Formats: sequence, structure tokens, C-alpha cells
Amino acid sequence: MAERKKIIIDTDPGIDDAMAIFLALQSPEVEVIGLTTIYGNVYTTLATTNALHLLEIAGRTDIPVAEGSHVTITKGTKLRIADFVHGTDGLGNQNFPPPKGKPIEQSAADFLTQQASLYPGKVTVVALGPLTNIALAIQSDPAFVKNIGQIVILGGAFSVNGNVNPAAEANIFGDPDAADIVFTSGADVLAIGINITHQVILTDADRDKMAKSNGKLAQYICKILDVYFSYHHDAYSTKGVYLHDPTTLLAAIDPLLVTYVEGVVRVQTMGITRGLTLFYNKQKRFGEVSEWCDKPTVKVAVTVDAPSVVKLVMERLMHS
Amino acid sequence: MAERKKIIIDTDPGIDDAMAIFLALQSPEVEVIGLTTIYGNVYTTLATTNALHLLEIAGRTDIPVAEGSHVTITKGTKLRIADFVHGTDGLGNQNFPPPKGKPIEQSAADFLTQQASLYPGKVTVVALGPLTNIALAIQSDPAFVKNIGQIVILGGAFSVNGNVNPAAEANIFGDPDAADIVFTSGADVLAIGINITHQVILTDADRDKMAKSNGKLAQYICKILDVYFSYHHDAYSTKGVYLHDPTTLLAAIDPLLVTYVEGVVRVQTMGITRGLTLFYNKQKRFGEVSEWCDKPTVKVAVTVDAPSVVKLVMERLMHS
Repeated sequence: MAERKKIIIDTDPGIDDAMAIFLALQSPEVEVIGLTTIYGNVYTTLATTNALHLLEIAGRTDIPVAEGSHVTITKGTKLRIADFVHGTDGLGNQNFPPPKGKPIEQSAADFLTQQASLYPGKVTVVALGPLTNIALAIQSDPAFVKNIGQIVILGGAFSVNGNVNPAAEANIFGDPDAADIVFTSGADVLAIGINITHQVILTDADRDKMAKSNGKLAQYICKILDVYFSYHHDAYSTKGVYLHDPTTLLAAIDPLLVTYVEGVVRVQTMGITRGLTLFYNKQKRFGEVSEWCDKPTVKVAVTVDAPSVVKLVMERLMHS
Repeated sequence: MAERKKIIIDTDPGIDDAMAIFLALQSPEVEVIGLTTIYGNVYTTLATTNALHLLEIAGRTDIPVAEGSHVTITKGTKLRIADFVHGTDGLGNQNFPPPKGKPIEQSAADFLTQQASLYPGKVTVVALGPLTNIALAIQSDPAFVKNIGQIVILGGAFSVNGNVNPAAEANIFGDPDAADIVFTSGADVLAIGINITHQVILTDADRDKMAKSNGKLAQYICKILDVYFSYHHDAYSTKGVYLHDPTTLLAAIDPLLVTYVEGVVRVQTMGITRGLTLFYNKQKRFGEVSEWCDKPTVKVAVTVDAPSVVKLVMERLMHS
């Protein structure tokens, strides 16, 4: 058997974060070496609480949780917290008891740079929230972009409307300056935008099937999914939910689930399209210097094998 | 025969502008009631000179030319002049003698509002340059948006890269503030972006066919096309040129040549994506207020019958 891929999940749980974390723990191809937390679906403090809680549910309290930034990289920006999507507790308003565990002393950024330097080229970061922690890691350790294996990002809306407003996707909108740092860092970045994840839908019927299974993680997930289904029905009129975070996690595990193009991505950091991700496909040779010139390329997913992703999510959660 | 559609061409000639103007004069469906000029491919003064020259070539000095703005609507912005696309004279570096005619005394904006009020609902503006004159008309006469029939714009890059830089198309980049005024004015706007016009290519073979015809306007156009072909070869590696302005003119004449979607378009006016056009398709109901809320919709072309456009352009110029 091939060496398991070491992954760190940077997360703001979050209902679909919970799915992605459980999915990772149920995936024999990977070894989850830590969770780092960030604001987004909830504030960072609650993200840490929820991360510890989820590891206790899964019986994996051996995995360290490092708390991340409580503020954007450009301090003073008001945070946008998506509690209207995930519930005020971030986990479907279930009032779970507080976890017994505590985060480690290290900050998320320090944990990221340390692990990347311990296992050069071997660690994949799966970034499921705003990119503040990753940008701080990049800024604090010049070797990080070389040491890190790959950064797989749930973020961006490439050639489609955003989900915060017509221009911006939530994770990029959460910290556009941090996102621009990550996209232009030179690290091996794979971006999974909502142009991809909006193709991956868990239907009502899928949920019912999971609820009827004996999988304890599947049953847990089904309990917290109600709020998430309601939000999707109200906002999108879909009978189902988008599997943003699980899709991103699986893309990190199995590159064959997505295809991608390579080009330069910049993030607009001000004005009405703040948080917009703009991909340059290099089809035109511009005579004028632009903000995309001389920047390293990243990978941006353009297709996804949605049926396989949904099947893997369901199977792995049901066999738990 | 149905009443001919009255059109005013707002133009910065420009090689493909020359094609569009000649095409309009050769189109029995429309009556060109005036040209208004604007900076873009050349400075406004030269645009006026070239407009007068082109009408003399076509033997249509009866058509008035009204000179437009020499500056962007937010004064002080440095103009971007695309003389590297069209030649320093805007017409393929042919050193044509100066025209004998003069522009009328009226400004472009005044001419636009006057004609729209003379023929309410009957005048189509075909806007082939930055949108300063149209925005000034909107600002100077509150009745203009109701009086004008339709504003058909060559502008924007919808879900594709721009042609000035990865974010922005040249006409919108030329005056983003003016463009945002026009797109949100409530007028009947049809935008033909480069996502459309990059599908409409006049090939080397097409040009050779036109050059061999007896059409005097076709022959004139073939003389000025060299610079334009060279630019396209260098920038895009295409063996042919994009028919931006002629496509837009024909879309104004025959709505069946394009299909469109309706939604709100806003223009980013600052930062690295300055000049970006962002279309909101209304598929998501956003919980939060955005800059797209409560703005009138416009039409944005999404497909074009490219073979028919090329055929019409060639036929009408060759039969002159």
C-alpha cells in the first residue's frame, strides 16, 4: 500500500466541514495529522470548539487541533459569519455538550509551517474557510510554499456568480487579501470553486438513505443537516445541498475526480466586486503590463465527477 | 417595407468602426441619422476627423457628425488610446487627406438627447467606444433613458478574460464609471461583449475575397485592414480579425443574430479588476444586500450566429 497522504484540514465547522472531516477520517488513503481552525461559518473560538467536538464524536482525540486567526490578515475588517447557513452553533443548532479536549498551544500558522517543514513535500492542506491562516504561514516562513505539498482550496467563483453576492464566493470574500497572498504565493495550489461544488448535490433521497444506514457518522451528519437543507431550499430552490467541503477533501485525496486548467488567479480586494477571483487563461498576449504578469500559476478545477463524489461521501459515512 | 430604424453610431474610428459605419450605410433596414465621436482607438479629435473622412468616402456627407467628450466622465483619468491596434491615424496608417467637412456645433451628448426626444422610442444608439457620451446624455436629460429606443453596446467581457488585461474589455476599461451609469440607467441596453465578438472572425481568405470584389467600400476596408490583421496575429495567433464593431451594428439591426440573457450588470471602477463587467443571473436569492439589488436589468448577448454575421458584413461591403 502506498504511503498515506498527510493532510491538515483548515476548517470553520460548519455542517459540510463536519462531513469533510469525517470523510477524511474514513478515508484509508490519508492520514489526518491535524485540524486548524478559522472563522467563517462560525467565529474562530466556536470553530475550535466544534473541531474538538467532531474529533470526540469520531473517537479521534489523538489528532491535534490548532486554533487559527480570529481576524482577517488586514486587521479591522468586519468578519462575515455564515451562521444563517449552518446554525448559530455551526452544527445545525443541536446544542451538543462542550468537548472535553483543548486545542494545542501552537497557533494554526505555526502548526502549518512546522508540519510542512517536518515532512517537506508530503503535507496537503485542505483549506475549507477563509485563507488567513495559510497566508500567515506563507508570511511567517519563507520556506513554507516550498515545504508544503499542495494547498487544496475550497474557494472562488470562476466565471460564475458568487454565493455572498454576484461577485464573490464566501471563503474568498472572508479575507480577500489573504486569498490573494495564497494564490500568488508560488505554492502548488488547486482551487475548487463553487462553479465545481454547485454540481455536487446531496439530495433529500441521499440523506434519507444515509439516515437509514447503521453508520454512526452518517447518522450524526443527518441530524445536523436540516438547517443546511433549509438554507439551500430558500436560497437556491434546490431539493438538496451543495457538498462544498467534502468535494474539496476528495479532490485532495483523488486528483482524478476533477480536471483543472492552469493560470494566474488574482483576487479583487476592494470595491463592489471585493472577493472576486479572476483567472487569466493566457490565451491573449497583452501588450500592457497587468497585475497578472509574472505571477505564478495555480490550478483551477473546471470539471468534477459529481456522481463519484456523492457516492464516495455517502459510502464512507455510512460505513462508519 | 417597414419603417427604417433610426440609428446613431457613437464611434472612435478605428478600423472595425469604419467597417461598422460602412455596413450601416449599406443596410437598407436602417437610417443613420448621425455619428457621435469618442476617444478610444484614437483621441476624440481624430475620431471626429476620421468619422467625417469615412462619410466622405461613402458619399454621405449629409449625415451629421457631433463631437463627443475628450475626457472620461470622472475627469483626470488618463486615457488609454489603442493606436497599437488601429494605427496611429486609427485607419491603418494610410495617411488619408483631411476631410473637408466639419462636425456640427452640438456636442455628442446634446445631439443624442435631442434626437431621442425628437423620435421617442425610435432611435437606436450603437455604442462602439467608451460610454462617456451616453452617460453624459443620461445625466443631462432625465428623459433620455425613456426616449431612447435601445442602446446596443460593444463592451464587456462576460465570464471570459478581457482584452486590455485579464479582467477588462477595452471600451468599458476606457471609462468604467460611465459604463456603470449606462448599465444601471434603466435604458433598454443590449451588451455585445468580447465573449460574443471573439466568435466572429474575418479570415485571411475572407479578406482576399473582399479585396478582389468590385465593391469600393470593400476595397477601402481591405486597404486599412493590414495593421488590424497584424495585431491579431501577434496578440492572439489568429489568422483573421475579430469583427467587434460590425457584429454589434448587425445585432442592432437584426436581433435574431444573437441570443441574450437578462440580468443586472455592474462595472468595477477601481482596483486590479477596474473595468470588469459583472453580470448577476438572479439564480440565487442573496440574504444580504448587494450592489446588484434593485438595479434595472439589461440584456447581455450569450450566443451569436457568427457565419451569418461574417456573410452579411462581406456581402454588404462588396456590393457597394
